[in-house]
Amino acid sequence: MERIKWQDVPAETPEGMPGVRIHWVIDKTRGAENFAMRVFEVAPGASTPYHHHWYEQEMYFLEGEGVAVSPQGEQLLTPGNVLWVQPEEPHAIRNTGSVPMKFICCVPTKKS
Amino acid sequence: MERIKWQDVPAETPEGMPGVRIHWVIDKTRGAENFAMRVFEVAPGASTPYHHHWYEQEMYFLEGEGVAVSPQGEQLLTPGNVLWVQPEEPHAIRNTGSVPMKFICCVPTKKS
Repeated sequence: MERIKWQDVPAETPEGMPGVRIHWVIDKTRGAENFAMRVFEVAPGASTPYHHHWYEQEMYFLEGEGVAVSPQGEQLLTPGNVLWVQPEEPHAIRNTGSVPMKFICCVPTKKS
Repeated sequence: MERIKWQDVPAETPEGMPGVRIHWVIDKTRGAENFAMRVFEVAPGASTPYHHHWYEQEMYFLEGEGVAVSPQGEQLLTPGNVLWVQPEEPHAIRNTGSVPMKFICCVPTKKS
């Protein structure tokens, strides 16, 4: 058992995602063989790219305000919201507020 | 894509867990084939049973205060803490505060 402060896990700042920081809080380096828990920080005005991938995402919004962009349009996201993104579904998360947006995003670590 | 308020998902009150409510927010009924996201509510003074199981747990503590019990003793849990519980590791979560404890607990939905 391991208690972790996500802020203590160094963040990635992925190429092509200005204003987005990703903390891989639980992943294979801790022995998580099935899925990973990440915490994202998105700066005001920043966005994850509009993209899709083979894996699903299970997200929980902690702080800040933004929108989830999908082929169906935009949906408001506020703290306490959960977002279910299916495999291959195009999506982006954009911070529309004035403070950093923080959210959990869990993803599988291997193809089933 | 589906935005969900976890409070809108009816809670289970499992046998033998008085004071514990479990909302299965994302699970196989939404098409999640690899892992599920649940939100737990634990009443003041209540606890999950001290137990172990084949699957790992990835947890994020949202509200309230409590302890994680393991063979190594007790660790304080406060909002923003993440807890990694390995497969077969004995554990319990006990609310030691005066308000409901709320946390996310993700688990795989099948043996790999």
